[in-house]
Formats: sequence, structure tokens, C-alpha cells
Amino acid sequence: MIVLLGASGYVGRAFQRLLQQSGEDYVSLSREQVDYTQYRDLVDFLRSLRPQFLINAAGYTGKPNVDACEIAKADALRGNAMFPLVVSHACQSVGIAWGHVSSGCIFSGGIVDCDGRRQIEPDLTTPAMKYLLATNPKAVHGFRETDEPNFSFRRPPCSFYSGSKALGEESLADDPFAYLWRLRIPFNQQDCPRNYLSKLQRYGKVYDNVNSVSHLDDYCRACLDLWKLGAPFGIYNVTNPGYVTTRQVVEMIGRVLLPARSFDYWENDDEFYRVAAKTPRSNCVLDTSKLIASGVKIRGVEEAIMDSLESWQAEPDRVSVHLT
Amino acid sequence: MIVLLGASGYVGRAFQRLLQQSGEDYVSLSREQVDYTQYRDLVDFLRSLRPQFLINAAGYTGKPNVDACEIAKADALRGNAMFPLVVSHACQSVGIAWGHVSSGCIFSGGIVDCDGRRQIEPDLTTPAMKYLLATNPKAVHGFRETDEPNFSFRRPPCSFYSGSKALGEESLADDPFAYLWRLRIPFNQQDCPRNYLSKLQRYGKVYDNVNSVSHLDDYCRACLDLWKLGAPFGIYNVTNPGYVTTRQVVEMIGRVLLPARSFDYWENDDEFYRVAAKTPRSNCVLDTSKLIASGVKIRGVEEAIMDSLESWQAEPDRVSVHLT
Repeated sequence: MIVLLGASGYVGRAFQRLLQQSGEDYVSLSREQVDYTQYRDLVDFLRSLRPQFLINAAGYTGKPNVDACEIAKADALRGNAMFPLVVSHACQSVGIAWGHVSSGCIFSGGIVDCDGRRQIEPDLTTPAMKYLLATNPKAVHGFRETDEPNFSFRRPPCSFYSGSKALGEESLADDPFAYLWRLRIPFNQQDCPRNYLSKLQRYGKVYDNVNSVSHLDDYCRACLDLWKLGAPFGIYNVTNPGYVTTRQVVEMIGRVLLPARSFDYWENDDEFYRVAAKTPRSNCVLDTSKLIASGVKIRGVEEAIMDSLESWQAEPDRVSVHLT
Repeated sequence: MIVLLGASGYVGRAFQRLLQQSGEDYVSLSREQVDYTQYRDLVDFLRSLRPQFLINAAGYTGKPNVDACEIAKADALRGNAMFPLVVSHACQSVGIAWGHVSSGCIFSGGIVDCDGRRQIEPDLTTPAMKYLLATNPKAVHGFRETDEPNFSFRRPPCSFYSGSKALGEESLADDPFAYLWRLRIPFNQQDCPRNYLSKLQRYGKVYDNVNSVSHLDDYCRACLDLWKLGAPFGIYNVTNPGYVTTRQVVEMIGRVLLPARSFDYWENDDEFYRVAAKTPRSNCVLDTSKLIASGVKIRGVEEAIMDSLESWQAEPDRVSVHLT
């Protein structure tokens, strides 16, 4: 028996689909049934049900985007930093292993080989980095699970969302029976406002950057696989191996979906943050070696994106245009 | 047996003195002995010791003042919002009642009678409020425990310190066996950098405002008395009844201590925040009716201040001057 928290959200729904499709014995717990934000209520529920595993897909992302967390600071902190502690303590109290939907958004940039040393490069959009990415893309690597977050309250600037997610990870570091599954920019074939491929098509202008990204269903399957394979507990970057630039993805969208529109880019960070965004955005490359070494199979990023576009299911009444 | 956390801090030391003086059977736990910020370690310790009660005086205040919390955001949140959850869950897990050093700094201003209605007045330094305070001081009341904090992330602007303390209170609301003891601007007769009466003497200029304040030793005794009297768990404003203006306190200092210096005041908020402070300060009046009704004896604010000044123990080498 698996307990799923947060099944009403974008990531939670994907976990629920996977659990259904794979015939798992699971319970999706809503706050109407049990107020699982309350330690005692959650402990009592877990003690009565005795599940083998719990998935926490509940959190606070902000709508329509992370800028909302700059206003809803208390909700962001309670959802992303404090609620994970409730789950952790309840699971430890009852003796249940669990997995937490964490985020790679606590990093900015990537790692560059420099005279044999790993050097952190917090911005992959500088002219020098663009040149390196174009001429020697293999010289750019992702952050590992052992790297310290560099886009957090401890390493400002950061968004309030990223700060709250980093605090959540930090406070779970000593939970011996927790997986921390880092998601990055989810997408799949189903058009929806949270889908990266939908967002790119709806933006007035596109922000060109370099990112690791997670096919949502690949992500959920990989997370569950880690548990099923008995991988050691701890942090895992769960993205499709590799990275993409926004231009590459836009080019794929153009090639496969043949959209009527063309795509403009924000000229630079200044214009983007002046016009479209309130708070700094995380753009980063993550290293998936640990995930792969654990035995989890997951396809590369380009295959995952192309597959999503080739089986694209547009929303029937897609009219709204969102900025960022 | 009582367990005390945070005995190295200003408030924790006062609790320790009280426990010693009153011959209580107590253990002061240091993080070197047990890392009580870790849920399991704290649970194991409490399970082995089985104390009757726990006092949490650990938290993050920022040095030399709350402005430091604007930089050390993660430390403020972990110490004031997240750590109380660790204590709450551990105590609930083992079945131990406890008390938390909370703060009245999550409020701004006071309550004014207005045509028989309680009206929140967030700033008691406006000309109209100064006139009211001078002509009809009994028309100004304090916030009650049932009032919602109005100086928090949910009711900005606030300082990061106040925001983190308000989140701490909020997340403990459903702990059925916790006291939340609100302290405000502690002082006693012992000169030290955290003592309000010392701060006023050391400031280059003084900021005139209206506040409820807590004699530190009165506070600790009142907190313990609440538990000993079997008062219902929950929030209590633990200040000396009444309120004072900074000018009144400065006048008392002048009258009793006969300092060589004179006191200048910041002309207004603008000057204070431009020159001396980075983040908004809480200034507020708290209502102590609930504390008094519970049977706790505590002297009025003027008596507590005068007594501290009349038995004043100056630090031998007081030279430093702090701003704000």
C-alpha cells in the first residue's frame, strides 16, 4: 500500500495516473478526508493504515507562476519548507519510508570543466558560455546531488519559491528514510498551463536559457523505480539526462507542431526581468549520473521532448496568453 | 523534571536562573550533548528521560539586532519557524507538554476604542494617536491572543524576524499541549546588550514609540506559573501589564540613573529607517487580561522598570555604542 499526498496538483495527478496504470495498491489522501498538514492527524492515519511507502506531491508553487510566491510568502514557506517536516516526522514516528517531490530550482547555471577542475558557472547565457555551449557542449555539466544549492536564501539572490524549496531539502537532510526527488520544468504530451511545452507556445516572448528538464511521466516512473529498486535514500536529480536550450525546444516545436506563430525572444535578462518577471528564475543543468547508476532507466532529453511533441494533445480551447 | 532548550541565549539564561533559584529538577540540554534540532535525536532523548515539561528558549534573533535576519533568512526561518515544529512533533510523539518562547513582535500598533468598537491602529506615533495617548491613555488597548498578527508575512510589511516568528506561532496552533508565551522587549536590572534599558542608554539617538515590555525574570516566572497553575494550553501575552512610551522610559532612566548624557530622538520614522534600521520594527501594545485571568501575578510595567533602574547593575566596561 502506497499513500499519495497532493494528488490534485500537476505532479500529484501524474503520480496518480502511474499508480493506477501500474495496478499499485494505493490511497490518494485529500485534506478533506484527513488534514495531513497536522502532525497528529497524519500520524493517526498512517498508524491505522500502515502503508509501505508515502509520496508527497503536495507543495506550493504559486499561480500562474513562482512570482506569486513573492506575495504569498507564508503559504510558500508553510507548503515547501514546513509541511515536508510534518511528513518527515510523521513517517519517522510510524516507521514509513517516503519520497518528496523536491526541485532542481535551487540551482542556477551549471558546471564547467576548467583545467580539470569543476567550476560553477551561475549564468549559462553569458557570451562566453554561449560560445562554449555552441562549440564544446560536452564541457558543460550538471550540478550533482553533493553540490550545495546556489540559488537559495543561503546563496542569494533567489526567488522566494526556490528559497522555500531549498529550506525543505535542507531540513530533510537527516531523515534516514526519505527520497528527495528533484524535478525540473515538467512537460509531457498533454497541453496544459503547467506544461513547459505549452508555456513556451503561450508566452508572448520566449526567454532563452539552458536547462535540464523532466518529462513528467518519466519522472514519476523513475521516482517509484528508485524505491522499488531499493536505491539508497537521499537526494536524486530526476531529469531526463542532458540539457536543452530554449531555442532548441522552440525549434522542435516549430518542426513538429508547425505553429502559425513565430517566436520572439527577450533581448536579455534586463528586458525579461523588467517586463515579464518579478523574481529571479532558476535556470540550471543537473547531473543524472546518480540516478542512472542506481539502475533506473530513463530516456534522454531530446527523445522525451520529441516524443511529447509527436503525440501532442492540444487543449481544445487554448486561448490565453501568459507572460513567463 | 523539566528540560530546557536554548539556555545559552538571553532568555534561556533567565529561565535557567529561575529553575536554579526555585530548586526545580531540570536539565539544560546543549546541542553538543544532543542535537535537538534533529527530530529523532530529540525524540530518543525525551523518551529516555521522560520529563514532565520542556521549555524551548532556542531561536534565532539576529545580532546585533533583527536587521541581521534580513541577511540570515535561512537561519531565521530554521530557528524560528521550523525548529519549533521539531520540538512540537517530538513532544507530541513522546507525550510531553511544553512551552515556547514566542514574541509579541508579530503585531504593530494597538487597539483603539472607537464608538464602542475595537479598531486596530497599526501606528501609535501619528499626531492623532499621540494626542489621544496624551489626553486619554486609557482609550488605547493591547492586542489580544485572539487577534490575528498584523506584522507578518501574511500582513506585510514586516521584518524577516517577525515573519519567521509569526510562522512559528501559526504552525503550533494545533499543538494541544503547547504554551506559546509571547515576550516583548525584555529588560531587567542587569546591564547587557540585549537589555532594553541598556539599549536605550547606548543608542546614539532614541526612537520614540509605544510598547508593552517584559521584565525578563517576571516573564520567566509567569511562564512557569502558567504551567504550574494548570492554565489551558495556547497563546499568552506575557508582558508587564500596561504600556510605556520610549520618552517615559528615558525620563525614568534620567531620573534614577542620572546619566551624564542627554537623549536625542529620531525626528520621525523616515529618519530612523533611513539612517539606523534596515527593516521595519514592531512596536505594539499587548493585552494581558488572559494572563491575569489565569491567576498569574505580575507587576505593572512602571513598577518593573523603576525596580530595574533602582537596582541597576552597570557592566564594568560599557563603551560600545549601538545604533538602533
